[in-house]
Amino acid sequence: MDYAARGRDMHALATRLWPLPRSLAGPAYRESLAMIEEVCGPIERHHFDTGEQVFDWTVPPEWDIREAWIRGPDGETVVDLRDSNLHVVSYSEPVDAELDLEDLQERLHSLPDQPDAIPYRTTYYTRSWGFCLSDRQRSELRPGRYTVHIDADLRPGRVELGEITIPGRTDEEVLLSTYLCHPSMANNELSGPMIVSQLADLLKAREPAPRYTYRLLFVPETIGAICYLARFGDRLRERLAAGYVVTCIGDPGDFTYKLSRRGNSLADRAARHVLTHAGEPHRIVDYYPAGSDERQYCSPGFNLPVGSLMRSTYDRFTEYHTSLDDLTLVTPDALAGSLRMYHRLIEAIEAAETFEVTVPYGEPLLSPRGLYPTTGAADPFERGKQDMMFLLNYCDGSADLLAAGDRIGRPIWDLRPHADRLVQHDLLRLVDGPRPADG
Amino acid sequence: MDYAARGRDMHALATRLWPLPRSLAGPAYRESLAMIEEVCGPIERHHFDTGEQVFDWTVPPEWDIREAWIRGPDGETVVDLRDSNLHVVSYSEPVDAELDLEDLQERLHSLPDQPDAIPYRTTYYTRSWGFCLSDRQRSELRPGRYTVHIDADLRPGRVELGEITIPGRTDEEVLLSTYLCHPSMANNELSGPMIVSQLADLLKAREPAPRYTYRLLFVPETIGAICYLARFGDRLRERLAAGYVVTCIGDPGDFTYKLSRRGNSLADRAARHVLTHAGEPHRIVDYYPAGSDERQYCSPGFNLPVGSLMRSTYDRFTEYHTSLDDLTLVTPDALAGSLRMYHRLIEAIEAAETFEVTVPYGEPLLSPRGLYPTTGAADPFERGKQDMMFLLNYCDGSADLLAAGDRIGRPIWDLRPHADRLVQHDLLRLVDGPRPADG
Amino acid sequence: MDYAARGRDMHALATRLWPLPRSLAGPAYRESLAMIEEVCGPIERHHFDTGEQVFDWTVPPEWDIREAWIRGPDGETVVDLRDSNLHVVSYSEPVDAELDLEDLQERLHSLPDQPDAIPYRTTYYTRSWGFCLSDRQRSELRPGRYTVHIDADLRPGRVELGEITIPGRTDEEVLLSTYLCHPSMANNELSGPMIVSQLADLLKAREPAPRYTYRLLFVPETIGAICYLARFGDRLRERLAAGYVVTCIGDPGDFTYKLSRRGNSLADRAARHVLTHAGEPHRIVDYYPAGSDERQYCSPGFNLPVGSLMRSTYDRFTEYHTSLDDLTLVTPDALAGSLRMYHRLIEAIEAAETFEVTVPYGEPLLSPRGLYPTTGAADPFERGKQDMMFLLNYCDGSADLLAAGDRIGRPIWDLRPHADRLVQHDLLRLVDGPRPADG
Repeated sequence: MDYAARGRDMHALATRLWPLPRSLAGPAYRESLAMIEEVCGPIERHHFDTGEQVFDWTVPPEWDIREAWIRGPDGETVVDLRDSNLHVVSYSEPVDAELDLEDLQERLHSLPDQPDAIPYRTTYYTRSWGFCLSDRQRSELRPGRYTVHIDADLRPGRVELGEITIPGRTDEEVLLSTYLCHPSMANNELSGPMIVSQLADLLKAREPAPRYTYRLLFVPETIGAICYLARFGDRLRERLAAGYVVTCIGDPGDFTYKLSRRGNSLADRAARHVLTHAGEPHRIVDYYPAGSDERQYCSPGFNLPVGSLMRSTYDRFTEYHTSLDDLTLVTPDALAGSLRMYHRLIEAIEAAETFEVTVPYGEPLLSPRGLYPTTGAADPFERGKQDMMFLLNYCDGSADLLAAGDRIGRPIWDLRPHADRLVQHDLLRLVDGPRPADG
Repeated sequence: MDYAARGRDMHALATRLWPLPRSLAGPAYRESLAMIEEVCGPIERHHFDTGEQVFDWTVPPEWDIREAWIRGPDGETVVDLRDSNLHVVSYSEPVDAELDLEDLQERLHSLPDQPDAIPYRTTYYTRSWGFCLSDRQRSELRPGRYTVHIDADLRPGRVELGEITIPGRTDEEVLLSTYLCHPSMANNELSGPMIVSQLADLLKAREPAPRYTYRLLFVPETIGAICYLARFGDRLRERLAAGYVVTCIGDPGDFTYKLSRRGNSLADRAARHVLTHAGEPHRIVDYYPAGSDERQYCSPGFNLPVGSLMRSTYDRFTEYHTSLDDLTLVTPDALAGSLRMYHRLIEAIEAAETFEVTVPYGEPLLSPRGLYPTTGAADPFERGKQDMMFLLNYCDGSADLLAAGDRIGRPIWDLRPHADRLVQHDLLRLVDGPRPADG
Repeated sequence: MDYAARGRDMHALATRLWPLPRSLAGPAYRESLAMIEEVCGPIERHHFDTGEQVFDWTVPPEWDIREAWIRGPDGETVVDLRDSNLHVVSYSEPVDAELDLEDLQERLHSLPDQPDAIPYRTTYYTRSWGFCLSDRQRSELRPGRYTVHIDADLRPGRVELGEITIPGRTDEEVLLSTYLCHPSMANNELSGPMIVSQLADLLKAREPAPRYTYRLLFVPETIGAICYLARFGDRLRERLAAGYVVTCIGDPGDFTYKLSRRGNSLADRAARHVLTHAGEPHRIVDYYPAGSDERQYCSPGFNLPVGSLMRSTYDRFTEYHTSLDDLTLVTPDALAGSLRMYHRLIEAIEAAETFEVTVPYGEPLLSPRGLYPTTGAADPFERGKQDMMFLLNYCDGSADLLAAGDRIGRPIWDLRPHADRLVQHDLLRLVDGPRPADG
């Protein structure tokens, strides 16, 4: 697998998506979805009309931003949307006004602690408007009369969710959910859709077809996950074996796995296992309901087995939610490594089946089956032999291959080939077990 | 709350109680109870007549000690009850005799390892008599003829238990049990009744009335707890949510919490939580059946959720059960700090209710309710917001607020105001749950 | 108990057994069993005829080896069975042939990493033949024509298992299983039968008779355990409380306990407890299905509570399965210490009964029963008193005396006498509990 080449492809696509002024809904969001579709094939759309009630929320209007600027006392342009999509508060209503600096200040957002960063602000559910700028620039504004102009529409339309379904051999599901509503931010946004679009490609090409049916979601954050749950939540509750929210995954920081609310779901067990055996520094943190769409998937009424494998988490990189979260923070190499880790994670989940030994009383005699040297007593502690003997003893149909690996500290990718060989020799059989439960 | 002033009041009352020659039953015990009543209001009495069978025990007679002394070969007074209540073995029968030093020695108790301390000894359940004195004094006794005199009565009467009941909004109970049968010892005795009498005062003044019904007991150690259990044990087994034996709580040593026999009862969970977050050095020790009345409450037939929050435990201060456990060992400041800690403990138990989110599917939309800034994306990791979001996710009616705080390492006194605010906004509702069980 | 003398006796018997060319079945195996019988009394035999199917296995023929040698180009004897039983591959078929060194090499086994060691090899289940020799000797073989001669029979007969049954007061069983099919190896073979034969002696002499019925097995490794399970496995599944495979127990290395597959069976709990309190360095390792007959006893269809207390385990001493595992590696002192440890283990299992206090409500009054000083308040924290008080509180019929000791970190051999004394005073009673289950 040429992850490095895919890392470069991902970064190139992120560069193309960068300038679009995305928000929850509207033309830029739609255009972004279409651009991703070019890479990973058809994406199904689910529509939710403005004003529709979804649980505690109401579907917002579309926002179409065309122009936004502030002109200073001498008519000079002080702030212009064309310089950065973050300059205008997302979902600002249209405005044309003149006002004194003093009054303008109430509409401005900046970060005194990060004087060069333009912050990211939104006003999705309250009609308002505002501008964001660097604190350095703000401090240089001279008293006087300012002209502000926002040319935008807030009109009824629809929130759109993009979904790719990759059918598996069973109808048990795995969810990979990412979001696409942030304009011009790289790690906390574009890294996620880049990874998910590549995973779509890998899963479609997989032979044999995967065991699980995969649901890959591109949604506007929060409202998108809520809409999806409102329409498909019952199915997820019934069929979802594991899921991950894919975000903050493009910087070169160490991996972080945030557990699902359950803490020991298949999603969690697989992530722990893969990170433990991948040999890279990482940390595992408990679930907490700040972050991204795991907040919706893990809301107590659903409590789905959804965690999040990230690199530097939202609360640990200072560029988060500012103009400094740009395409230099995210690197092709880091994206390549992230893709590889998510790929391993998926393959670990695929491999985590449950087996049962067919000769449960005493050991099976292995030498006539060609599984053991005919001359005995040499090297019984060789690792391959030990793995095989372990599986013949451990597999009693009560626990899957991840649990087996965890019991002896061996990675599932080393154990699974032994299990397959033992199945070929009719010494193990696959247990058509119940849906993978908590560990 | 002026804990310091209460600390001084407690020490002053202990000073008044000090000279009374208390034992299991008799006039000095009764007088002590009346003296405490002056401070904390009416105390109900429960009577158990001498000779009554209570489980494996028989209620003892009353003991009235008036005079006790030893005179030496030259008629000089060697030991006199008037110098220390500990000089006479508690429940000594009356005696008037002359005997040689050699025979007297068999009736004397001293501590070679602590030559200046008078030990505390009792003979409650076997008729006998004896004297206690310092080993230094004992070593100076000259051979010769000694006169001993004990003017005491051992007569039928009754063991009395004092109980203050503070009705709560429910009939679930919290027990605070202390003992009042030791003469002239300060940490291992008077500190306990002092704290409990102040807690009675605080609980009576509490607004609103507490959720739990509080039972505050002043009893003679061991036999008192056994009598109480014989009469009220079935009620405790049905209703007791948490209890503490209050003793050894007046010295300046670090706090020690001794777990109940169950180890994870509400009493234990609350004490662990409060000590963890109070920021004072402390240790937590497993239950063991040496100590005080927790031995009775945690006897296997009852196995009640009763622990003990102490400072220097009976087995860790050398003055224990000697004349050195005096009013210099116990300080107003230490008493004040202990009252404060018990007060926090009670408030933690009161706060540990169970809540359920009213919007379990997806997160509730907070900004229109004034619970979240209308301009989004700023500082989602601010602590207050995180606490609120956590409660909206965690509270599914299955675990109380102590468990919530333990999950994220936050004190219940910080979480509870958020819970109340969310109840006001109809986002949480109180679960009229079952009796608080083990964690 | 004079363990040192028994250590010397064990080493002397091992020296007598050393020269016999034992294998799975045949005259040398039978003779060895008879030699052990001289020491520890009658051993019952169970027979399994050649060709009989036992689970996945077929009972092999008997092997009678009389002579085996290789002569070199000049007629000189290069290898001779008379020098070492390991020189011939066990279960070699008869052969008389001349062949070039090049062809002979394919029939030779040596260890390049251990040039002075003769390896141990077998060909039980495939007809073949071969010789083993040191790599040093092998490297000196000159090109030319060699004569090989193996005078052996492979004839129908029977596999024999030896069993000593020591009846107990109940029909619950404890299994001690060792093997006797290795020729001329000391730690990985003879140490086991030596220890088991001494344990037979100790258990027969025990007064009173043990609580458990003991099964002491001397079998050929693997096939012997499988045969035993085929005939008696259902009984073991129903009655076996604990078992140990006794091997690798004669060298001076630290003790190693290998857990049963269950991990917390009575066998495991007792071994952990005894090793923890015996004060000798040791390690405890998880179950893994390489090793000895625990592989059969712990096969998933049986999953019996069988662990293995060893010293240097098969995978940790380099002499394993070579001619270097000789009678200098095993010492009388080490055998004596091992016997002592197994003896403690058996006595811990015997002592691990379950008790229930007869006075569950409040403490019993101890002083009139002579169990507590009549003068109270002195030294309540003395260890003996604490042990007794602990038992009176802990024993509620729900857990055995090993669990009691583990709760307070006290060895069962200190607690049991207190329990017996309390039974004599009618304060504890033995619970005729269910079969000891997992802890």
